[in-house]
Amino acid sequence: MTASIKVGLLGLGVVGGGTWKVLQNNAEEIARRAGRRIEITAVAVRDVEKARKLLGDSPIRVTTDGLEIARDPQIDVVVELIGGETLAREWVMEAIRQGKHVVTANKALLARHGNEIFDAASDNDVMVAFEAAVAGGIPIIKAIREGLTANRIEWIAGIINGTTNFILSEMRSRGLPFNTVLAEAQRLGYAEADPTFDIEGVDAAHKLTLLASLAFGIPVQFDKACIEGIAKLEAEDIQHAARLGYRIKLLGITRRRDDGIELRVHPTLIPMNCLLANVEGAMNAVLVYGDIVGPTLYYGQGAGEMPTASAVVADLVDVARLDSADPEHRVPHLAFQPDAVKDIPILEADDIESSYYLRLRVEDRPGVLSDISRILAEAGISIGSMFQEPGEPGEASIIFLLHLAREGSVSVAIEKMSKLPFVRSEVTRLRVEELI
Amino acid sequence: MTASIKVGLLGLGVVGGGTWKVLQNNAEEIARRAGRRIEITAVAVRDVEKARKLLGDSPIRVTTDGLEIARDPQIDVVVELIGGETLAREWVMEAIRQGKHVVTANKALLARHGNEIFDAASDNDVMVAFEAAVAGGIPIIKAIREGLTANRIEWIAGIINGTTNFILSEMRSRGLPFNTVLAEAQRLGYAEADPTFDIEGVDAAHKLTLLASLAFGIPVQFDKACIEGIAKLEAEDIQHAARLGYRIKLLGITRRRDDGIELRVHPTLIPMNCLLANVEGAMNAVLVYGDIVGPTLYYGQGAGEMPTASAVVADLVDVARLDSADPEHRVPHLAFQPDAVKDIPILEADDIESSYYLRLRVEDRPGVLSDISRILAEAGISIGSMFQEPGEPGEASIIFLLHLAREGSVSVAIEKMSKLPFVRSEVTRLRVEELI
Repeated sequence: MTASIKVGLLGLGVVGGGTWKVLQNNAEEIARRAGRRIEITAVAVRDVEKARKLLGDSPIRVTTDGLEIARDPQIDVVVELIGGETLAREWVMEAIRQGKHVVTANKALLARHGNEIFDAASDNDVMVAFEAAVAGGIPIIKAIREGLTANRIEWIAGIINGTTNFILSEMRSRGLPFNTVLAEAQRLGYAEADPTFDIEGVDAAHKLTLLASLAFGIPVQFDKACIEGIAKLEAEDIQHAARLGYRIKLLGITRRRDDGIELRVHPTLIPMNCLLANVEGAMNAVLVYGDIVGPTLYYGQGAGEMPTASAVVADLVDVARLDSADPEHRVPHLAFQPDAVKDIPILEADDIESSYYLRLRVEDRPGVLSDISRILAEAGISIGSMFQEPGEPGEASIIFLLHLAREGSVSVAIEKMSKLPFVRSEVTRLRVEELI
Repeated sequence: MTASIKVGLLGLGVVGGGTWKVLQNNAEEIARRAGRRIEITAVAVRDVEKARKLLGDSPIRVTTDGLEIARDPQIDVVVELIGGETLAREWVMEAIRQGKHVVTANKALLARHGNEIFDAASDNDVMVAFEAAVAGGIPIIKAIREGLTANRIEWIAGIINGTTNFILSEMRSRGLPFNTVLAEAQRLGYAEADPTFDIEGVDAAHKLTLLASLAFGIPVQFDKACIEGIAKLEAEDIQHAARLGYRIKLLGITRRRDDGIELRVHPTLIPMNCLLANVEGAMNAVLVYGDIVGPTLYYGQGAGEMPTASAVVADLVDVARLDSADPEHRVPHLAFQPDAVKDIPILEADDIESSYYLRLRVEDRPGVLSDISRILAEAGISIGSMFQEPGEPGEASIIFLLHLAREGSVSVAIEKMSKLPFVRSEVTRLRVEELI
């Protein structure tokens, strides 16, 4: 058997600890596959004492300085699991400059600084593997980057944040409001103490940014993503959606259009009978539509100690297998050869095309519906279905499902509706996607 | 860009024609990914005239002799899409001996002669890629072989035959008997004129044999699979299953046990709310359970011109990428290094462990249930639930759901029940799996 591959681990928290355990527990199975052993030889952590306890009597070097690991000539691969964008970026860049391969689960780092990192990796003939950065244990990056290479990928729609999917599943199945479920999710460990990144859709947008680059061969450009979270979603809308045959999921959607690429994260009504609508709890799933293969779907646990460690270790096996290969013929970081990456524009929010769900509370008097319908008609937006139901005394709620429209036109129409004297609420707008 | 990779195509039928089209239509997208062009330079077909018509004025050489292609020094990769086990085997083996990589969609060939073929490939330092052989366009082989390498895979359960899934979906949703739906499936092109391989479960067992080898690192051994098809399935059992909260799917199941490996294809009751139960029509889906990642599921079209071509071309891109790599460090054919493949025994049918559904028609008189229950009790089999309903005058149907049991014990119990004087039918036995 070839010599073992030496790994330096940055971070020994949840995922780092999991990675260490997997490499210990499944060492034999992994070596049978990889053809060589994968061995952690050094770890950088904040708390050396604590790390020593976890590592027991294994002869792993423990340091607080990641640069020491990035510069250690004995180390072949650096695994970055500390998160954040400061130290992580510095240590990863140094490891690359030192000619080491990098495995990382850090989606924020790659979504914001991926172009710089992948360029440096190409210049230094090293691999940067990041299967763990998107949808945890689901090998979705491998599927897109290697499994669907025959396809012109048309679009991707994914449930890629477990926290928000857990919250939405609970809101729907138990009829509870957002804040109640969030508190419970925090108690159960499904949501962090500061859940902003998850519930505002930022985490999902980080992951979607990477998926879009892999699907379309474009640079990573997180700053152009349109992002809307679930914090303002009302239980009432979940019920109306159900009545119309839909469920609401926080989806990351990226779609190729003639004039550019849509890159957007938002709560979305999807038909109840499609598989994505039935992905419940903290599970993740990604639906990919290729022109040749049609739809394929990938489902599994998207976060947590072990699922994420599964992806980290799979990347290590890939690196072990390809370490000796001609760098030119490795799988390119962003699925397409670096010189084939194209800077196709990401579309502005106003240019998104979607169907829409609108809900507004109005004074219950004659002429209301006709005034609202006229605004939609003038904007060239056609109505798929509509229902009205009584609300507080003298009030009614009106719900529209609109056909495909440009988001800019819908925004203008909403603006006009809000100014009608009999409209008594903000206009709730959600996007609707029929998917497949 | 590196020189193009030259492909010789054996067969230009449905999948061969699709492969040709994909390589034409998506040539640019594919080259952007692979870093080199993939070019078909020769084709072996039965009908040269017909091939010429399809290929138009492209300068592709057309021959009727596959050996000519296998021996052409200009060709880098031979793609075998003629099916069958005679010519296909001869041409594939010759291509390997000539040092060419092989891509094939031929599950029967690999399930029966895979060990010989993979050995020859290792001896000649070439790759044999077969993503198209299992679940068509779904990159399931890549997922297992490369995406889940951190895991000790515990079991796989898959809907891996579209024809039977289409038939079962129609039988359930429209309440029609097997023969009616089969005739319709044949009319619609979902079932072949001779549907034996599909409906008897042989095709699914070919695919399952390959999945088991990839999951557990064992030689392919199709002859040891336990196979039961759907031809004898009655509409009545689909209804009873529904009442109990289950759907019936033809599953391929392979599971690692302490004493060996289960390898079995049969109609299976699975809980209605699990994702696999909601895979309808001709779609395929494979559920893989790894000790680290937990369950992951892969879904898509399992057959047909384009989905299968998608997998063939993805394999060609892999080959193009890895052509120049050190043979020792390519991904091993059966996921595990050749010297790490273990000959773990495949269990006999009697040693399978499952839960069971039994249905029998009995004379409606006192003591019947007690006699039957006694037989089960004596065999050490416990009853999960049971219901009885009236049938023809003087008769009743009894349905049991049994807890986990050894199949041998269940068979003995069924044998005894059949001999009871008041039992008026064969005992219908179906397996039940709770999955996840």
